[in-house]
Amino acid sequence: MNDEAYMRLALHEAQRGRGLTYRNPLVGAVLVKDDQVLGAGHHVHFGQSHAEVDAFNQVQHPEDVKNSTLYVTLEPCCHTGKTPPCAHQIVDWGVKEVVVAQMDPNPLVKGQGISYLEAHGVTVKMGVLSTEAEQLNETYNFYYRHKRPLVTVKTAQSLDGKIALPYAARTYLTDAEANVMIDDDRAEQQAILVGSQTVLDDDPQLLVRQPLEYAPVRVILDRRGRLVPPLRLLKCDVPIWLFTTNCHVAERFSAYPQVRIFVAKRWPVAAVVQQLGQLGIQSLMVEGGAHIQNAFLAADLVDQLLIYQVFEVFGRLSLPAFTGPEDRRQKFSPRNIMQVGNALRILAGRQ
Amino acid sequence: MNDEAYMRLALHEAQRGRGLTYRNPLVGAVLVKDDQVLGAGHHVHFGQSHAEVDAFNQVQHPEDVKNSTLYVTLEPCCHTGKTPPCAHQIVDWGVKEVVVAQMDPNPLVKGQGISYLEAHGVTVKMGVLSTEAEQLNETYNFYYRHKRPLVTVKTAQSLDGKIALPYAARTYLTDAEANVMIDDDRAEQQAILVGSQTVLDDDPQLLVRQPLEYAPVRVILDRRGRLVPPLRLLKCDVPIWLFTTNCHVAERFSAYPQVRIFVAKRWPVAAVVQQLGQLGIQSLMVEGGAHIQNAFLAADLVDQLLIYQVFEVFGRLSLPAFTGPEDRRQKFSPRNIMQVGNALRILAGRQ
Repeated sequence: MNDEAYMRLALHEAQRGRGLTYRNPLVGAVLVKDDQVLGAGHHVHFGQSHAEVDAFNQVQHPEDVKNSTLYVTLEPCCHTGKTPPCAHQIVDWGVKEVVVAQMDPNPLVKGQGISYLEAHGVTVKMGVLSTEAEQLNETYNFYYRHKRPLVTVKTAQSLDGKIALPYAARTYLTDAEANVMIDDDRAEQQAILVGSQTVLDDDPQLLVRQPLEYAPVRVILDRRGRLVPPLRLLKCDVPIWLFTTNCHVAERFSAYPQVRIFVAKRWPVAAVVQQLGQLGIQSLMVEGGAHIQNAFLAADLVDQLLIYQVFEVFGRLSLPAFTGPEDRRQKFSPRNIMQVGNALRILAGRQ
Repeated sequence: MNDEAYMRLALHEAQRGRGLTYRNPLVGAVLVKDDQVLGAGHHVHFGQSHAEVDAFNQVQHPEDVKNSTLYVTLEPCCHTGKTPPCAHQIVDWGVKEVVVAQMDPNPLVKGQGISYLEAHGVTVKMGVLSTEAEQLNETYNFYYRHKRPLVTVKTAQSLDGKIALPYAARTYLTDAEANVMIDDDRAEQQAILVGSQTVLDDDPQLLVRQPLEYAPVRVILDRRGRLVPPLRLLKCDVPIWLFTTNCHVAERFSAYPQVRIFVAKRWPVAAVVQQLGQLGIQSLMVEGGAHIQNAFLAADLVDQLLIYQVFEVFGRLSLPAFTGPEDRRQKFSPRNIMQVGNALRILAGRQ
């Protein structure tokens, strides 16, 4: 087998961590000697073994690892985080060569793992199946390259781009089957954002139905401070981060330990995104309302559009999906289109 | 082989006439004796041989047809149109049994072909693969059952349901590849309708690029009579039917033999559709503008929506695809969804 074949195996291994690694990337590793796989592993869980160590732990006779080749989808770390640095351990094991698919964009690593290995006599080969490895951790890579979360603006709308009928308290667009998919979309995010108007109109919980170890943070943009308990949001202890310009808000929510208040003189959406990035949020789904969707467009902060389009026409008087004082034409590219339940799910990326 | 297998062959034969039969249905016929196919034929071309006669003409020894079984996708005709009645010829040939997939909804036939055959000692079997046969001639069947054309409302729009940027003379949405498909969609229609505003704004030709024997009639709704030659529409002799309430319009276009003027005190869209039906138009594609699209929705006259959606957001100030004084929520069902060029082509049917 050649390098690509072993790297493909490592990529396959990496997938096993899906949904468990939280803010860490998916990583796979394979140890090979004399064209025989000694062990294969993956990053198992946020805060637990890295892929390299997991692979090493699978090896029957640890002494075999001496002079072996390690295939790993992401550059080995060289800092002490929740686990000791992998680069050090690789050197200690006596690995001869490390084949790496992608350099780690995290500034704590970013080439330092590779430097450490090379400085300690390990041959390093870069760039094998790097595109595939990049795709594995799109959000993680985006976050470290752009220093802010990947923003997905999500709407459910009619064929004529409307989100609600006129004068209706709440218009239900998607059916149960589509809602399961929407829930899955939410579950992949580290934060969900809505405006105070959406909370006032719908009193939503913004939870994910499936049990998740790391449920997305619920970010509420309530600049004027219009929200007052009780709210259905407060019924559970998934974190709520409330962005406001009103300094009286903190008091109102003091009885709710899950609520964290961010007060500033102004909260343009760019500043909110910046703040979320500083708090380590790698992915954000913006769920409206229409003014907020539009503000993200106008601020050029829509990396992805996720539209659930139902096969209805609502008409002129209904509420549009995007509205606000700013107006901006923006082009996207289709990334994935599928029919689910009563809706057409359109995922489009920034062009 | 059983009845269904021979009928499937007849359905397959019928397809050969696609694009050539104009206002006539696609029809296929197979003559069988002693489990041997004697001949297979189809309705060749508007005004030419019907399928039964075409099948007969393929038979090597015409005397073999005596006591054979005829499989035909549509009830044989019994009236003298552009060709003599098929039912009479079938009796003359000595066919013993006729298996029919679908009764002809055309009132000139509608059971009379079957009656004639039965009255002359021919056994008739009905309903073999009738659903498949119905699908073959959807427009034809719709026209005779509803006594009006099947109406398809077509738009090209952004993801937020807009058809044009504000203050732009004309916004081009679909790319060359999508436009070829739009051309094919037009080519399948017997008439295309636009409002006078679209003619004033775009000065379109409303032609189909591919050479067609029966190009769709260009229907212009110009109630107030705002259109005055010269117009690019007038540059070719494909029929133009102009609906107006202004009795001075006829004079303006008197030099153009391809223009036919329809004057009435009022032309609500339902009356226009009714008139087109009386003139034999079986399918109509409505191409806007936004007020006309909305008028068709409000009149409950949208049998199909055909949307070419490009991956752009135009914003609040842009022109919506549907607008007008009337407002109406209407549900559709997806019929066909595909990506073509830079667009998503969504065909949805009335629910």
